[in-house]
Amino acid sequence: MKVVRAEIIAIGDELLYGQIVDTNSHWISQELDLMGVKVVRKTTVGDDRKDILAAFASAEARADIILITGGLGPTQDDLTKPLMAEYFSCAIVENTAAVEAVTEFFRKRGREMTPLNLLQGHLPACCTYVPNEVGTAPGMWFERNGTYWMSMPGVPHEMKKLMTDFVLPKLPTLFPLPVIVHRMIKTVGIGESWLADLIRLWEDALPSTIRLAYLPSLGHVKLRLTGFGTEKTEIENAIQQQIDLVLPSIEKYVYGYDSESLETAIGKLLTESHKTVALAESCSGGYISHLITSISGSSSYFQGAVIPYQNQFKEEIIHVKNHTLTSKGAVSEETVLEMATGVRKLFKADFGLASSGVAGPTGGTEEKPVGTIWIACTGDGFQETKKLQLTQDRMLNIQLTAVAVLNLLRICILEK
Amino acid sequence: MKVVRAEIIAIGDELLYGQIVDTNSHWISQELDLMGVKVVRKTTVGDDRKDILAAFASAEARADIILITGGLGPTQDDLTKPLMAEYFSCAIVENTAAVEAVTEFFRKRGREMTPLNLLQGHLPACCTYVPNEVGTAPGMWFERNGTYWMSMPGVPHEMKKLMTDFVLPKLPTLFPLPVIVHRMIKTVGIGESWLADLIRLWEDALPSTIRLAYLPSLGHVKLRLTGFGTEKTEIENAIQQQIDLVLPSIEKYVYGYDSESLETAIGKLLTESHKTVALAESCSGGYISHLITSISGSSSYFQGAVIPYQNQFKEEIIHVKNHTLTSKGAVSEETVLEMATGVRKLFKADFGLASSGVAGPTGGTEEKPVGTIWIACTGDGFQETKKLQLTQDRMLNIQLTAVAVLNLLRICILEK
Repeated sequence: MKVVRAEIIAIGDELLYGQIVDTNSHWISQELDLMGVKVVRKTTVGDDRKDILAAFASAEARADIILITGGLGPTQDDLTKPLMAEYFSCAIVENTAAVEAVTEFFRKRGREMTPLNLLQGHLPACCTYVPNEVGTAPGMWFERNGTYWMSMPGVPHEMKKLMTDFVLPKLPTLFPLPVIVHRMIKTVGIGESWLADLIRLWEDALPSTIRLAYLPSLGHVKLRLTGFGTEKTEIENAIQQQIDLVLPSIEKYVYGYDSESLETAIGKLLTESHKTVALAESCSGGYISHLITSISGSSSYFQGAVIPYQNQFKEEIIHVKNHTLTSKGAVSEETVLEMATGVRKLFKADFGLASSGVAGPTGGTEEKPVGTIWIACTGDGFQETKKLQLTQDRMLNIQLTAVAVLNLLRICILEK
Repeated sequence: MKVVRAEIIAIGDELLYGQIVDTNSHWISQELDLMGVKVVRKTTVGDDRKDILAAFASAEARADIILITGGLGPTQDDLTKPLMAEYFSCAIVENTAAVEAVTEFFRKRGREMTPLNLLQGHLPACCTYVPNEVGTAPGMWFERNGTYWMSMPGVPHEMKKLMTDFVLPKLPTLFPLPVIVHRMIKTVGIGESWLADLIRLWEDALPSTIRLAYLPSLGHVKLRLTGFGTEKTEIENAIQQQIDLVLPSIEKYVYGYDSESLETAIGKLLTESHKTVALAESCSGGYISHLITSISGSSSYFQGAVIPYQNQFKEEIIHVKNHTLTSKGAVSEETVLEMATGVRKLFKADFGLASSGVAGPTGGTEEKPVGTIWIACTGDGFQETKKLQLTQDRMLNIQLTAVAVLNLLRICILEK
């Protein structure tokens, strides 16, 4: 089956100058991907005649469907409409339905209409008018030599309505679309290249109908499996087969699938095992608690936390021994263990977690340089500690510590 | 003066499939805009040889500087390096410095290196190796016929470090750039349109050489003043003059300037007044503590925090009266005040802060719907409380609560 190729063109100086984040292109990508339409390129151009026409031409040379957002406002710097008329060499004429719609739009809202607004009802003669029920700039549909074009406003909710009501339902009537299935294997605690080494043989043996992508992010690596075919469940089974094949070699790093986050996965594990957790956060300063409590329902397994930023409170609130702090220091295996034990007791939790380290950029020593961080997880009859040697960047150290602590908890829940 | 034209090329199927939001292009746009470099196009292509080479060619035909992100991982689906070698027709050879750097990167972290990692030190012979101190994929700098190319990893913090340390400082040495001065006035606690009303007369009277932009973000509005000219100090003085003119009408909302964050501003105020702070976070779940401790040096004024997620611990640890919890509920002015008072005492702090509310999406009631949040700030001889009625979105509610609490603290430090 022929792959249907789409291109997205976003128009507007404000996008190039970084004054506005283009969330449209990302949303359109996701929607087309779900339908098995292959986005081959996203282009952003400014309010410039030459650049816009060039983008039109190169897109037409490559794509079956071209989706254009922006440049449809009533003001002079909005060039999309005149340039599409020029590109398709047809005149801009009054479109009765469009003029009525824009007039109605203002009447409904009791707002006065300017001559500029009225001009929004004038469209290239060669386009099909697509009503925009939530704004004043109409959608415009063009066809030429088997390529289809849709021009939409840049305002996200207007674009989304036109896509959802008109474009997305229309696509299957224009092209035979393949069936595409994506699955995501979420791993933590192993780097991209080590993971690649572990699964190289499996990767090399993947069938041509299944594509693998490594998507690394802070402390995580996602494996995305994309299957192509004609029958959804068939593809799903083929992908599941591959997941079952690879799982044994990476199982201990896999915390979840698809949209599941590490926090969500841990919430699930704690809920299923009816266990609770409490934290003593020093160098991570509340970030781990924030991640855990960002999940709705976390109150059923998160007892609470203490952030004893000053040593005095490590002693007074979670009862770290003064001797431990003076002899071993706050950044030590002994201290982090007593923190985890103390906070677990204070909050009567099943699991006690703790972090203590030199987040940086200052405060490092010869013996304990910036990025030296101790973490611990304690529970009924066990205690686990880990020493991390991280970066010079404070925020990065905080984030990586959080991933390490959450992963340590995950392993403790599974193994203890 | 000739306009310097830049293009940004983002590479990766995951960007086209909409599985990752490309935040890099937006950040790069902003940085180049600040320097007076004109971004004329952003292109996103997938992991496809033909598409990538086509993007290279059309960019070279238009731009003076081409910035490429992504496709540099050690795995098989990463094509940028081989394709740049192909495009510039030169071989990929071992780069001693790059191999040493990547080896050192792993040595430092006491992590084992794979053959794949070693290959990351092999680079196109025709590029200049640009060390990446925070990752394993090196930056690569190319020059041909007066066009400059920089290839960077897609991992945002690695790209930002290479841009900040190498690319941005290099640009003025390659091109004559206009003199542009930006100043940012940071405000909090007032909406964009109210702010606009307050300063309309001043805005209308701005000289043509100074442009104003409103940059709203969560709970904040930044006013960016951009001055154009030929002489830096001259422009700076002209902008300062305008700031002095507008300040009286907005002073109480202004917490800082330029890159200063609300957390930084509060850190400064606390340090200058030799005061300390402690927090009791319920609905904000540690996020406010995270913001405060994300600032290096916060240990000199941040005593610590308690996150008593269960009511039981609001009583046991920070001594909220059982009667208050049962009669008024956890989400009430009385409870949040007792939390702030209790945590201030526990941590012997000058200021005690607290938050308690219904973050959502569940847990709302008729009387206390989702988004109902109480915050408090207590200190020597004063106590301030505020009721927030926020959104249905959990994460948004947590973030907006944090801004409100930090702003309440700011006002208390200034006025008490």
